[in-house]
Amino acid sequence: MIKVIAKNYVHQDNLKEVVELYRELVELTRKEKGCIKYELFQDEKDPLSIAMIEEWASKEDLERHLSSEHFLRIVPLIRKHMQKQTDMGIYNRII
Amino acid sequence: MIKVIAKNYVHQDNLKEVVELYRELVELTRKEKGCIKYELFQDEKDPLSIAMIEEWASKEDLERHLSSEHFLRIVPLIRKHMQKQTDMGIYNRII
Repeated sequence: MIKVIAKNYVHQDNLKEVVELYRELVELTRKEKGCIKYELFQDEKDPLSIAMIEEWASKEDLERHLSSEHFLRIVPLIRKHMQKQTDMGIYNRII
Repeated sequence: MIKVIAKNYVHQDNLKEVVELYRELVELTRKEKGCIKYELFQDEKDPLSIAMIEEWASKEDLERHLSSEHFLRIVPLIRKHMQKQTDMGIYNRII
C-alpha cells in the first residue's frame, strides 16, 4: 500500500469552483482499480489550504491513475485556481 | 472525524533512533480514546522526510492526546533529531 499527500493552495474566491472540479475527479477516481482511499481535506485554520490524501494498492495503480483521462482532463483545470505549485509526496508506511 | 498531517525532516544518521522513539509513541497513542489511525510514513524519494498521518474521532480526543504523558515525554526527544520545525496541519474532510 502507498500513500499520497497532495497539498494545494487555492486562489481567494475560487474555492467553490475548485471543490466542484474535485468532486468529479474524486467520483471517477474512486472507481479506479487499486484506489483504496481518495479524499479531499481542508485545513481548519486556513480554508484555502486543501490536501488530497490518497491510498493506493500499488505504485502501478497510482501511475495508471496519473495518466487516466479524468486526471489529465480535470487536474489542469484545478491547477488554474491555485496560488502555488502542488506539494505532492508519495509515502510508504514504516510504523 | 479530523485528520492530522505532521511532517518532519530528520537529521542524517538519526533515522533509526527516531523510528524507535516513534514506535513507543505509536504503540501508546493507538490505545487512546478516539484514536482511529496513527501511522508513520516515509517519503519514497527522501528517507529523511517522514509524515505522521492521524485520524481522530473528535478535536477533544486530539487535544487530550497532545497533553498526554507519552506525547509530552517522547515528542521533545524526537524533535531533537529534526532538521526543521514540524509542519503540522489539522484537516476536516470536505469530499
